[in-house]
Amino acid sequence: MVPHLITALTGPINELEQRILESMPAIERWFRLEWMEHTPPFYCSVDIRNAGFKLAPVDTNLFPGGWNNLTPEMLPLAVQAAMAAIEKICPEAKNLLVIPENHTRNTFYLSNLAQLQRIFHMAGLNVRLGSISPEITEPTRIDLPNGDSVLLEPVVRGPHRLGLKDFDPCTILLNNDLSAGAPGILEDLHEQYLLPPLHAGWSVRRKTRHFQSYEEVAKRFGKMLGIDPWLVNPMFSHCGEVDFSDGKGLECLRENTDALLGKIRRKYKEYGINEKPFVIIKADNGTYGMGIMTVRDVKDLEQLNRKTRNKMSVIKDGQEVSEVIIQEGVLTQERIHEAVAEPVVYMMDRYVVGGFYRVHAERGVDENLNAPGASFVPLAFAESTHLPQPGQKPGASAPNRFYMYGVIGRLAMLAASYELEATDPEAEHYD
Amino acid sequence: MVPHLITALTGPINELEQRILESMPAIERWFRLEWMEHTPPFYCSVDIRNAGFKLAPVDTNLFPGGWNNLTPEMLPLAVQAAMAAIEKICPEAKNLLVIPENHTRNTFYLSNLAQLQRIFHMAGLNVRLGSISPEITEPTRIDLPNGDSVLLEPVVRGPHRLGLKDFDPCTILLNNDLSAGAPGILEDLHEQYLLPPLHAGWSVRRKTRHFQSYEEVAKRFGKMLGIDPWLVNPMFSHCGEVDFSDGKGLECLRENTDALLGKIRRKYKEYGINEKPFVIIKADNGTYGMGIMTVRDVKDLEQLNRKTRNKMSVIKDGQEVSEVIIQEGVLTQERIHEAVAEPVVYMMDRYVVGGFYRVHAERGVDENLNAPGASFVPLAFAESTHLPQPGQKPGASAPNRFYMYGVIGRLAMLAASYELEATDPEAEHYD
Repeated sequence: MVPHLITALTGPINELEQRILESMPAIERWFRLEWMEHTPPFYCSVDIRNAGFKLAPVDTNLFPGGWNNLTPEMLPLAVQAAMAAIEKICPEAKNLLVIPENHTRNTFYLSNLAQLQRIFHMAGLNVRLGSISPEITEPTRIDLPNGDSVLLEPVVRGPHRLGLKDFDPCTILLNNDLSAGAPGILEDLHEQYLLPPLHAGWSVRRKTRHFQSYEEVAKRFGKMLGIDPWLVNPMFSHCGEVDFSDGKGLECLRENTDALLGKIRRKYKEYGINEKPFVIIKADNGTYGMGIMTVRDVKDLEQLNRKTRNKMSVIKDGQEVSEVIIQEGVLTQERIHEAVAEPVVYMMDRYVVGGFYRVHAERGVDENLNAPGASFVPLAFAESTHLPQPGQKPGASAPNRFYMYGVIGRLAMLAASYELEATDPEAEHYD
Repeated sequence: MVPHLITALTGPINELEQRILESMPAIERWFRLEWMEHTPPFYCSVDIRNAGFKLAPVDTNLFPGGWNNLTPEMLPLAVQAAMAAIEKICPEAKNLLVIPENHTRNTFYLSNLAQLQRIFHMAGLNVRLGSISPEITEPTRIDLPNGDSVLLEPVVRGPHRLGLKDFDPCTILLNNDLSAGAPGILEDLHEQYLLPPLHAGWSVRRKTRHFQSYEEVAKRFGKMLGIDPWLVNPMFSHCGEVDFSDGKGLECLRENTDALLGKIRRKYKEYGINEKPFVIIKADNGTYGMGIMTVRDVKDLEQLNRKTRNKMSVIKDGQEVSEVIIQEGVLTQERIHEAVAEPVVYMMDRYVVGGFYRVHAERGVDENLNAPGASFVPLAFAESTHLPQPGQKPGASAPNRFYMYGVIGRLAMLAASYELEATDPEAEHYD
């Protein structure tokens, strides 16, 4: 079950959607059984693209910002999920320390922190914000446009614990994706719960690894429903050593792009889809929508201009790009006031707690929307008394559509769980 | 955390409310720790009375009907809680059989069944309704005013399992309070989960036992917050053998009523409360608002007329009253369109998932509202973006008030958990 929300897409429901709705009890049971074996990431947001003929996740964020874009009506769901998460991890917890990103001047991001603080406060924790930014050397209160304020405090590191001057948390929640690597101050905190774990940070994570896990999840899901997993899975390939500034590895990029465009073309033919295939080339450890480009023809790669090369070569926190994922492009059919939109689904523990649309008026249906100029349209709770029900006519129900987004979001979350298990440096591996 | 709902009471917040709001993290943690030791009843609704100076539960229902009175916006919370409950009890579950009450002609009750079916379907179960009524001898579809319909099917009993003709559930959910005793068909089902257990039925339960447990819970809660437990606890006493039709045991009733009225009077004096004390006399195993009367003066008991005697002597399913609880009356300060109202809080697993007001235009502030003529006003989600927050001015926030109702509801649910542990016939007791 996912929140009963309005979606932007009002067109007829497709065959995939109908199959997913009919299989609701089987799908929910499948997730239940999966979560018996695998631990969900603490929280997670997933960018989803609905092409009409295909629905797939394109990015999975394990340190989601943007909680401020959830509506007040969604908060009780988030709080209930937070309670469930805390209960499992550390029911005796009193204090939670949230470690935010270091960019302290972005009021959107700071509103996200205020929202996270509110959610965990209402779930029954004393919550404070411990900055690891060198700029925060003393408690710093920052007022937000909506009247809220946040207090960023410098963290204090002891031999085995991290806290604030007069605040000793049993749990530390990272809302910092560690693009520049896990700082020493976060290492060896064996007495405290650190969530998500350090290896969920972008200095360790690779999109390729995530989508390998996702492919596995999609295959099993497809088998259960009796559908082609491609309908929910974006194909991808990988180049390990690319240097956009000096052109090294571009041959690998061209070959893989060409091959992937060919595979997409064959799938489109198989399904009678009359669209132009494209791929998205992204930094394999990229985030914040940086280092992303759309390629519709392999020839585009032969004439990369300086601007594109620069854009592609450096991502967040000045990290240089060398590994690259080439991902099947999934176009989006969703529009809000004529602008191209994609749903973003928010989860905590195993629960879908809300979502919103990322909207970008200046981008095409085959482009990355996570770019300057994007805006966020909260998904409202549907006011209709019609809830997803098996008997309901296909296409009649927007909430039915959102159910499907919640399923895809959870498939990606499950893939992240597989991924974190596989990359856990402390896991014992039996060969 | 409880849903962010609008309440009817707009007056100033009182000291108790402020203390509860300030203590939110401590209260939530306390509940978390309690639920580590005690299992919440599967579901539960609690009638609450807010006297302004005092807030207390007056009845705790372990087989709640009225789920149809929750708004569509509350359903995701109920579904999420249902998922959490199922996950803990039987994650592998596919099929759920709901056993309804036998009164099959009440469309309000049948709408409640349709709602329960919807909640558990969306939580990922195949849900069917298995009637134990002798009137249901074949599958019977009943259409409801709102366009829904329910299908009641006769249960089929095997040597060790209960199901339907072609439906073998792993879990059976009772929505029948077993006032007339647990029928043999529900006994010895050791292969299936039967929830709530048979001893939660009104043939075993006693209100006295529940409020003993509640008193214990209220004392510990009061100690934690540093408040007089009386502020959340209705005092009570008990008469074991009363026969309203022949007057037997009325002496006990008079003595206890007189003593309790005296105790209330002293409490009112202590707090400077200028109200007239009253007690509620109820069948100790009563339900459906039957067998309840308000007594403001012990003299009222000396002149019981035939109508009152009859009303008090027989309750649901023709059960005769002999045990009686004399409970401190808690008046309600809440009004909806001038009619007297009391909040009813709904819980599933350990979560508050919604609520509504029971409203009765023809009853006074010191009378039982659960009577013919009552109506139900769903609590809407507050549209304000203000959520309960520690910094918010007392009285400024209706959602803050609903938080308090959720706390009191959960105290009663916790008491029910203690009660069920104490009365479990299969429990091993160590003296």
